Amino acid sequence: MAAAAARGAMRAVRVFEFGGPEVLRLQADVPIPSPEDAQVLIKVHACGVNPVETYIRSGNYARKPALPYTPGSDVAGVIEGVGGRVTAFKKGDRVFTSATLSGGYADYAVAEADTVFPLSDKLSFSQGAAIAIPYFTAYRALFLKACQSRGKRANSWCKWRRKYSEKVGIAACQIARAYGLKVLGTAGTEQGMNVVLRNGAHQAFNHREANYLDKIMEYTKMQGVNIIIEMLSNVNLAADLHLLSHAGRVMVVGCRGPIEINPRDTMNKESSIRGVSLFLQTEEERRECVRAVLDGIESGWLKPVVGPEYPLQEVAKAHEDIIHSSGARGKMVLLP
Amino acid sequence: MAAAAARGAMRAVRVFEFGGPEVLRLQADVPIPSPEDAQVLIKVHACGVNPVETYIRSGNYARKPALPYTPGSDVAGVIEGVGGRVTAFKKGDRVFTSATLSGGYADYAVAEADTVFPLSDKLSFSQGAAIAIPYFTAYRALFLKACQSRGKRANSWCKWRRKYSEKVGIAACQIARAYGLKVLGTAGTEQGMNVVLRNGAHQAFNHREANYLDKIMEYTKMQGVNIIIEMLSNVNLAADLHLLSHAGRVMVVGCRGPIEINPRDTMNKESSIRGVSLFLQTEEERRECVRAVLDGIESGWLKPVVGPEYPLQEVAKAHEDIIHSSGARGKMVLLP
Repeated sequence: MAAAAARGAMRAVRVFEFGGPEVLRLQADVPIPSPEDAQVLIKVHACGVNPVETYIRSGNYARKPALPYTPGSDVAGVIEGVGGRVTAFKKGDRVFTSATLSGGYADYAVAEADTVFPLSDKLSFSQGAAIAIPYFTAYRALFLKACQSRGKRANSWCKWRRKYSEKVGIAACQIARAYGLKVLGTAGTEQGMNVVLRNGAHQAFNHREANYLDKIMEYTKMQGVNIIIEMLSNVNLAADLHLLSHAGRVMVVGCRGPIEINPRDTMNKESSIRGVSLFLQTEEERRECVRAVLDGIESGWLKPVVGPEYPLQEVAKAHEDIIHSSGARGKMVLLP
Repeated sequence: MAAAAARGAMRAVRVFEFGGPEVLRLQADVPIPSPEDAQVLIKVHACGVNPVETYIRSGNYARKPALPYTPGSDVAGVIEGVGGRVTAFKKGDRVFTSATLSGGYADYAVAEADTVFPLSDKLSFSQGAAIAIPYFTAYRALFLKACQSRGKRANSWCKWRRKYSEKVGIAACQIARAYGLKVLGTAGTEQGMNVVLRNGAHQAFNHREANYLDKIMEYTKMQGVNIIIEMLSNVNLAADLHLLSHAGRVMVVGCRGPIEINPRDTMNKESSIRGVSLFLQTEEERRECVRAVLDGIESGWLKPVVGPEYPLQEVAKAHEDIIHSSGARGKMVLLP
């Protein structure tokens, strides 16, 4: 690899056509990109794998990149070079980013310097690659889109359902607890419930128990929960509406298909169902997310939980596993 | 009736048990209520009939009054007497109210004086009885719950679907137009589309045409509509999600059952589905609605459209008809 790098070539995953995991091709002769004026070149030590990257790869997603492209946005690594106008970073700095320009499933990636941040010594590269999409999404859902006033936290309840304990769930749990919300989490195993509790939940419930919804209502003294961060709307949305408090909100963060609901369930409580997409963030919102994340690293409450790590050549398996695995696991990362 | 009134008795519809329209009993010997300190007694000239009154009567509604009770809240009539502390009204004043204490399906009704307002000479009693629930609901949906900033109106679109032209639909149309929104309406007949247009819509669409949704999207230059006031969510909600703009909102004002939707449709546009219930209004919100309504009467844009009028003895038929009739008709009222 070092020899290849010396020749200006690197390994990168390339997608030439939309389709299943098999369209992810690892190539060894991809030119190493050059950072322009305000850009940096990062030697990738870890790249987060996010469900949205499988949706985009399939071609069924609303947003389609021009082909061919290299997937991946959430990279942690070391600065390899900087553009002429970059003063904030120098070669050798440990960094993470939320927005590579050339794609993160690769040995090297370029990014605009203002989307790159120092990676604290407290965090590993794999943890650095597990920050951006999960934490930005969780913060967006909780504070930018649920209209949850951060000054009015005392009586707030948060709840996650199924696969809660993975990815966005862990991030949401840590953020919600750090910002003073009351946090309920659910998981399907003892192990998962422990993950929930270790990451900030005041109480964990087992969604395999028949009466766990009743238990949640009892725990809230029959008031219901104010915010639900929903990662599996196609399974849970109808039941979510019964769990909501007056003016409660289900934030739709993940969904894999249709579901029957009774819209009347939103009327009696003036509750709502609200979609969340990180792609729609404004520059101002992105800056607010970044501030929150950097605060969290500094304060110590932001602790990405890393799960399975795959070498770059196993990228197709990573894409299989992120959709089909379940239960309490941490963030999946690729290690070039 | 005059003789009965002299003996302190009146006619009133009484409900002794929840059930179908047949539980509405017209009785002739109900005591005329007495206004207490801050209350007034209104001789009822017209009482609005609202769908919610059929839901409450059926016993299937979230809110159940103590039995027996007299339905009806939206009354217009003439002040017959006032409590000791009431100075705003005197016998003979034409008034309307949104909140009778004793029930409006009757010859007389008492109400708190601060829920009673002068009825402009511009409006008939039947029009006065067609104001409160429809206009308060429409105002609440548009400006209190859709988070539609009244200062940011220029690019807003409103759209109603099916039965649009009745009740809340007419009110929403007039209010939206008065407040500067761009208003789209739909109806199923030529007559209904004319009602839509006469009441403020910039454009009307026929929902019986197969491609009317495409036409609406074209009319919005493929941007979609910002707010949908949805009176029949169980039929329209899934399609509504496709019509919404970025950050668009479906306000669930009416619903008669379940429907399958794809929650993912809310994600790409960060759109939302939001329940509306007038029962949840705060005193402050009520005052804002009242101000808007009184402004509208004064300015002349608030013009309730009165539809079928029923004598009090045909109350059961009125309750049948309000649920089963369809198409472009005005507000249904009872005339004691």
